[in-house]
Amino acid sequence: MKIYLDCLPCFLKQTIQAGRLVSEDEGLIRNIVNEVAALIPYLPENSTPPEIGEKIHRRIREVTGLNDPYSAVKQQNIEEALHLYPDMKELVRKSSDPLFTAVKIAIAGNIIDFGTGTEFDIASDIHKIIEQEPGINNIEPFKETLKQAESILYLGDNAGESVFDRILIEELKKPVTYVVRGIPVLNDATYEDAVASGLDESAAEIISSGTTAPGTVLPLCSDNFLERFNKADMIISKGQGNYEGLSEVDRPVFFLLKAKCSVIAQDIGVNEGDTVLKGINF
Amino acid sequence: MKIYLDCLPCFLKQTIQAGRLVSEDEGLIRNIVNEVAALIPYLPENSTPPEIGEKIHRRIREVTGLNDPYSAVKQQNIEEALHLYPDMKELVRKSSDPLFTAVKIAIAGNIIDFGTGTEFDIASDIHKIIEQEPGINNIEPFKETLKQAESILYLGDNAGESVFDRILIEELKKPVTYVVRGIPVLNDATYEDAVASGLDESAAEIISSGTTAPGTVLPLCSDNFLERFNKADMIISKGQGNYEGLSEVDRPVFFLLKAKCSVIAQDIGVNEGDTVLKGINF
Repeated sequence: MKIYLDCLPCFLKQTIQAGRLVSEDEGLIRNIVNEVAALIPYLPENSTPPEIGEKIHRRIREVTGLNDPYSAVKQQNIEEALHLYPDMKELVRKSSDPLFTAVKIAIAGNIIDFGTGTEFDIASDIHKIIEQEPGINNIEPFKETLKQAESILYLGDNAGESVFDRILIEELKKPVTYVVRGIPVLNDATYEDAVASGLDESAAEIISSGTTAPGTVLPLCSDNFLERFNKADMIISKGQGNYEGLSEVDRPVFFLLKAKCSVIAQDIGVNEGDTVLKGINF
Repeated sequence: MKIYLDCLPCFLKQTIQAGRLVSEDEGLIRNIVNEVAALIPYLPENSTPPEIGEKIHRRIREVTGLNDPYSAVKQQNIEEALHLYPDMKELVRKSSDPLFTAVKIAIAGNIIDFGTGTEFDIASDIHKIIEQEPGINNIEPFKETLKQAESILYLGDNAGESVFDRILIEELKKPVTYVVRGIPVLNDATYEDAVASGLDESAAEIISSGTTAPGTVLPLCSDNFLERFNKADMIISKGQGNYEGLSEVDRPVFFLLKAKCSVIAQDIGVNEGDTVLKGINF
């Protein structure tokens, strides 16, 4: 997804929000905002929003001196999600369409987010979202592609949401490669977060995309990941950051997300707040 | 009021909103956003938000080649407000406290605004706001100061709102000097807009502050205005832009506004959406 005009103020807003989560020093946050503002006139054509996110969070790590500033909130979200795990499994077990229910649970996990400033309460919001009918619902092609697929890449998003991903992965009934970020960026799931979420038991393997951005930005990914990405029969992509990086690729991708900002909602063609199961190139 | 951290993304948002009101060329708006973004790292200490507004709207005039890009919307708002004028007069006439009712009507007129991105519908919103109890209500000191005052300056804000100002001015029962901006900036009232609102009949005189900002920024005002400002017994200041410029002055100012953004609400000490009648140095 390209950078829209309305993304520009949002970059500064996200910088402030992300900064306030890790520091109370408004002067320090102001300096990072200044740096991000100074980038705006020089954003390359065809760059995507997570590439700016990459710069924002790199500077936050540098100025706070913390490698993983969101470590504590990530841990808390994983614990809270693990607490909900048995109930979610039960929902799937009782469902007349367990795979679709598991998809909706995975999408519901996407409410865990500190990137967009949306307030959330995992335990109380999750059931509402599961009952919500997706704005775009490509569940039939999803099932059809899954049936044929031998290699499945599952691109994770936030830590905590990763526990909900586990439920879908367990329902896919095929070996799945779960993909995490290359380094801790925002509250996105890293290898350690995926293991803490129990994904080492549910996925066949956990690999890193190598990206340092809060989204799958292909030019920033490792060669190893790109090779897997270009060969996979089915790619399941969670969340806005991955959508922003991959919305125009020529691969069979199914995007599972909640449209938390008006720009992305418009780009996808749904209403803000809608859940989405959208496939491309299937 | 100083520029808070949260004002920075809002400057870009305001640029986009203001740009879209006068042009459909996203590339042209993007160029102005770039220029505003480039200013952010170099904002002088102690500058106030309307000083940035001044730069935003100067560039909008320059790149569109229009001296008064909001002329049509201003005219429309004045007409709509004039249509409501008889009803508002009737409300005052029937009131047990006509002056307070006129104050609330003048505050209600402050919903007319294109600077903050708040949606409004004059006719339907006005009655709700008149019935609303202000978050800060200094009506008693307002009345007391008015009783003693011989020279009253009334700092106007938006065109259309100016018709509601007329109702309060007519209720003050004293000669009032109505102050407009030095040039057309955003949808703020100019001399012509004040006359179109009928203020030439209600105010003793209409003068310009000389400022080119969408707010009373004293360093940008004319010497003539500053002399009047420093001598006035009572200053009535409408709207956020004037508050932002004058919140820390050493003069008897009564601020009448609706707190349309969270930053201003917090600076004043009310909730977002509250109406305010706040006096200082009385």
